[in-house]
Amino acid sequence: MPELADRLLAGEQRALSRVISMLERGDPSAVEVMRDIDAHTGRAYTLGITGPPGAGKSTIVDQLTRHLRGIHQRVGIVAVDPTSPFSGGALLGDRIRMQRHYLDSGVFIRSVATRGQAGGLPRIVKGIARALDAAGCDVVIVETVGVGQTELGIMSVADTVAVALIPEAGDSIQALKAGVMEIADLYVVNKADRDGADQMAASVTAMLQMSLTTPDWVPPVTMTAAHTGQGIEELWEKLQEHRTYLETSGNLSKRRGEHRTQEFLEVVEEELVRRLRRLVQTDPSLLAKLERVAARDAEPYSAALEFLNDSTLNPGLLTTPTR
Amino acid sequence: MPELADRLLAGEQRALSRVISMLERGDPSAVEVMRDIDAHTGRAYTLGITGPPGAGKSTIVDQLTRHLRGIHQRVGIVAVDPTSPFSGGALLGDRIRMQRHYLDSGVFIRSVATRGQAGGLPRIVKGIARALDAAGCDVVIVETVGVGQTELGIMSVADTVAVALIPEAGDSIQALKAGVMEIADLYVVNKADRDGADQMAASVTAMLQMSLTTPDWVPPVTMTAAHTGQGIEELWEKLQEHRTYLETSGNLSKRRGEHRTQEFLEVVEEELVRRLRRLVQTDPSLLAKLERVAARDAEPYSAALEFLNDSTLNPGLLTTPTR
Repeated sequence: MPELADRLLAGEQRALSRVISMLERGDPSAVEVMRDIDAHTGRAYTLGITGPPGAGKSTIVDQLTRHLRGIHQRVGIVAVDPTSPFSGGALLGDRIRMQRHYLDSGVFIRSVATRGQAGGLPRIVKGIARALDAAGCDVVIVETVGVGQTELGIMSVADTVAVALIPEAGDSIQALKAGVMEIADLYVVNKADRDGADQMAASVTAMLQMSLTTPDWVPPVTMTAAHTGQGIEELWEKLQEHRTYLETSGNLSKRRGEHRTQEFLEVVEEELVRRLRRLVQTDPSLLAKLERVAARDAEPYSAALEFLNDSTLNPGLLTTPTR
Repeated sequence: MPELADRLLAGEQRALSRVISMLERGDPSAVEVMRDIDAHTGRAYTLGITGPPGAGKSTIVDQLTRHLRGIHQRVGIVAVDPTSPFSGGALLGDRIRMQRHYLDSGVFIRSVATRGQAGGLPRIVKGIARALDAAGCDVVIVETVGVGQTELGIMSVADTVAVALIPEAGDSIQALKAGVMEIADLYVVNKADRDGADQMAASVTAMLQMSLTTPDWVPPVTMTAAHTGQGIEELWEKLQEHRTYLETSGNLSKRRGEHRTQEFLEVVEEELVRRLRRLVQTDPSLLAKLERVAARDAEPYSAALEFLNDSTLNPGLLTTPTR
């Protein structure tokens, strides 16, 4: 689809929307577009923001976007909606305040739901970020609600990962131990006008000093009161410092290379699963095996490993093109 | 490991704990045990309970266990801990009240975390439930915090799925539209002593009437105030009605057969991914391809599909045993 790729590269928002939709539903034509635009990517700076619900991430993104527009940067925003089947509505409400940017042609906003995708979300978000990059965005911001490991995985799209925290969240410090600390390049203590903000910032700083972080970059702890815009400019400066650090240390291309190989592996995994699901519907010997498992004539776990080690069945799973 | 299987079948709790740990860490010996005990499973009634955080699921499980012990039933409980890296501590607090059952040899309680497992959680929970069944549990209860699609997937272990709701959760009705309704066999409106409980029950009932549910089983809506034990006996009666329905309609063996084939497919998928990860470390041509992707000489998405369609690479992925 060279025409669609060209329109995307020219920055046409409708072409961008269409490519993103193709990525989301696993349309085979998306592969060609992604291949055609790849040489035109790598210019955008990609920022990931995560943190617990209620930390004000959407407000930070909103204010950061406002700031970036003031300095003539084109901004792409990918808002990843939460996985929870029980709390969807409430968390999405925050996004409404982004609406003022919808009429600005220098801002492209896309929400991605964690349900109903044809592929894995970390992989799709990487594709969307690259499409935004190719379409001319200077900064791509990926915002996720930190409610699961999937959301942490999505952060593997970003050059810089910022973790938003709030003063009153005692759990936040616990969270840092649970995998968040490993991905954070910068901390934002938001709602800094509330009691306990300084204390929270001090706790995070203390924790950083105790841990074995890389000696060449110690994540800064910044403070914002995003609803008033306070601290946003300083936040952007700190983000830029991290970007400069990445560039001068050679870690930018290293990190981006790792993200690309991860994406490769994610696609292979998804495709293997898709081919297996197809084989279930078409392969008589697999169907017979599944019937034996269902009828209690074979135990599921051991039967599955037997199936994988049966070389007469396997080649078809990988070599039959399904597209 | 025939000796371990025998000890598990004799109901020895230490053997049970050991097998579950083996399942969790993907120990190859677990496969043999699962195969050896399979013929001794199928006797236990497996109940899944899910619902939003704060719905009182742990209290319901606690009181139901108390009731079941009163009628001399052996109970196995699998408590699936939440995925969230940000809210782990708070949600787990509820589990503390289960402690009174820890000294009762007729109750076996196991917490399973959603992090750090060698395999997919839905598959591991199915294995644990079967081990509990083989060890002589009359009732197996699987409780999950409904914070993600994974948790809904875990419910594919249960004969009967109960969804707990609370009066004040306006989001709950939204949730029913987001996939929960499809898996619920029964609703429990808990905290029925609070305002709005009757209204919540009426809303759920109305929604059930509007939807195209199976005509042969309409999910009942029961009410409990689990912290006082109110409604627990009636809840158990309704659960038994569903069990009887499943048995007399032939749906019990059908549903269990589906769960077994799902488990088979889950194991195959996990194993494929594991073999891919291993191949990354050992296969020179795949490594070369990954390096090209990282260095921007190849685009990740299209390169992954090319790799899958390259028959000279693929057979090794599936046929090389990794255990």
